[in-house]
Amino acid sequence: MNPTRLAISVGDPNGIGIEVALKAIENARDGQKLRFEPVLFGSEGTIKAQAGSLGIDLSYELVDVAESPEQKSFRARPGEIDARAGELAMRSVKLAAQYCLDARTDALVTAPISKEAIRLAGFSNIGHTEYLASMTQAEEFTMMMVDGDFRVGLATTHMAIADVARSISMEVILAKTRTLDKSLRIDFRISNPRIAVLGLNPHAGESGAMGREEIEMISPAIAAALEEGMSVDGPFPADGFFGMRRQKEFDAVLAMYHDQGLIPFKTIAFETGVNFTAGLPIVRTSPDHGTAFDIAGLNKASSKSMESALILAIDVSENRKAYGS
Amino acid sequence: MNPTRLAISVGDPNGIGIEVALKAIENARDGQKLRFEPVLFGSEGTIKAQAGSLGIDLSYELVDVAESPEQKSFRARPGEIDARAGELAMRSVKLAAQYCLDARTDALVTAPISKEAIRLAGFSNIGHTEYLASMTQAEEFTMMMVDGDFRVGLATTHMAIADVARSISMEVILAKTRTLDKSLRIDFRISNPRIAVLGLNPHAGESGAMGREEIEMISPAIAAALEEGMSVDGPFPADGFFGMRRQKEFDAVLAMYHDQGLIPFKTIAFETGVNFTAGLPIVRTSPDHGTAFDIAGLNKASSKSMESALILAIDVSENRKAYGS
Repeated sequence: MNPTRLAISVGDPNGIGIEVALKAIENARDGQKLRFEPVLFGSEGTIKAQAGSLGIDLSYELVDVAESPEQKSFRARPGEIDARAGELAMRSVKLAAQYCLDARTDALVTAPISKEAIRLAGFSNIGHTEYLASMTQAEEFTMMMVDGDFRVGLATTHMAIADVARSISMEVILAKTRTLDKSLRIDFRISNPRIAVLGLNPHAGESGAMGREEIEMISPAIAAALEEGMSVDGPFPADGFFGMRRQKEFDAVLAMYHDQGLIPFKTIAFETGVNFTAGLPIVRTSPDHGTAFDIAGLNKASSKSMESALILAIDVSENRKAYGS
Repeated sequence: MNPTRLAISVGDPNGIGIEVALKAIENARDGQKLRFEPVLFGSEGTIKAQAGSLGIDLSYELVDVAESPEQKSFRARPGEIDARAGELAMRSVKLAAQYCLDARTDALVTAPISKEAIRLAGFSNIGHTEYLASMTQAEEFTMMMVDGDFRVGLATTHMAIADVARSISMEVILAKTRTLDKSLRIDFRISNPRIAVLGLNPHAGESGAMGREEIEMISPAIAAALEEGMSVDGPFPADGFFGMRRQKEFDAVLAMYHDQGLIPFKTIAFETGVNFTAGLPIVRTSPDHGTAFDIAGLNKASSKSMESALILAIDVSENRKAYGS
């Protein structure tokens, strides 16, 4: 098998993206003898400057995303929220994703962007996941967090708590469960994946005493998934579920909203967690942290999560190839 | 100092309440040589039957809460949801709390009740905390979970997710923060308590991109608390907060809703966690688990959390006495 070609978008050049990407590539290639070819997407000036200050020799492909003279002359100012930095970050993602769509690379790993810088650059208020879903015309996708065998999928993602309950429906939960199930089979090669579905409300509503979504939407979605042959159980009260370590009994947990899934995930697996978008036509992972503007430029950032993101991207890419063959 | 007199309501007689109460008293008195006098509140018949099957000699006070002939003839049927069991459970709580209000006991420890059995018994849909707040005419109270130095308070408790956002206000958060601050000073003898306040929305709203409660309510409440001289910080994004173990920097964390506080709490401290109601005129603790109908009557229940509840009740009771003197 040819080495996996990984497109890596370096994220906001004022954050820790370039630093963790460069460090992670060094560590992954040195220590674990991984057979992969990195292709870095970012502004050449900022990447070379960072590599220089880290003493890293850039011995691999680099796609310069800077286009205009303004972009080409951009120099990183660590920690600053800047429209041009946001612009370059989005161009990195766009070009790297296009390489994957064109099959010039096998998988995409995205370093963190700043939503505020993106907004200043004139993009609407969306994250990586939503942008890539739209760009790749994915019909259905599910944001997942992965740490070894611990996987958490989200039924809803970046929205206010006030909007969560009305965004949940039997259809949404069933669709997210299907995407998870399919991804576990194809991307993770689990032949009969078991999925746990959490309740929306405290104590999973306690028989309707605190919210009726479990009765009217979540349980019917679970019943429909079972009918379709999936191995699904729930709805489980979310607090006791993780307290009793029940995640160990399942291949994935479907949480109803962002913090319900990410609080236990990060509490259990902070440094090594990886964000994976199930259901996209391209393989995409990213580290489980933000731009970390407060420590940008200080050579203090841990590249552990980025390394895990590289490894997972290679694994999923190979699994998809094996499944397709 | 006289030994602390602990009123212990045994909860639903069909659950694990009597079992964990009896075991915890034995362990706490034997192992740790605690100076306390337990006073058990429950139906004499069910307690004596359980003590007999556990081989425990009842060498302490027991207040029989069974009144009617029907109540007196009640025999436990482990695991069953039963109106009479619910009735007895509520009488246990009521009489035990009254003993505390009358200063015949120093503190109250409540074993778990079944909300469904309570409802069958004709009580409205409330939990222990709300019932005791009403009975003791507490003006302001905050449900807290405690495990050593890890303490989580809840701004809202047992309500549907759909109702959470509209139940939050600057006033509610400030009131809960005040109650927490006062309790940390008096009940836990911390002279300058530090409190972390979590955001309501994912990423604490990310500057208003996902909900404006942080800007309009939570930050103003924190500012007001600082103005009043409290040491308060936030609002923090809830997922990263626990992932980075930032709870270690604070004496208590104020979560905005049930699962936001209880998911990380139970993930970190399942078996030894204690529920404590800050702000009540009486001292009240309870174990961090439910009736566990599935293992009731099998002598399988762990009494660890109940032991922690007894110990915390004694500690808080002594701290309040020391503060008052």
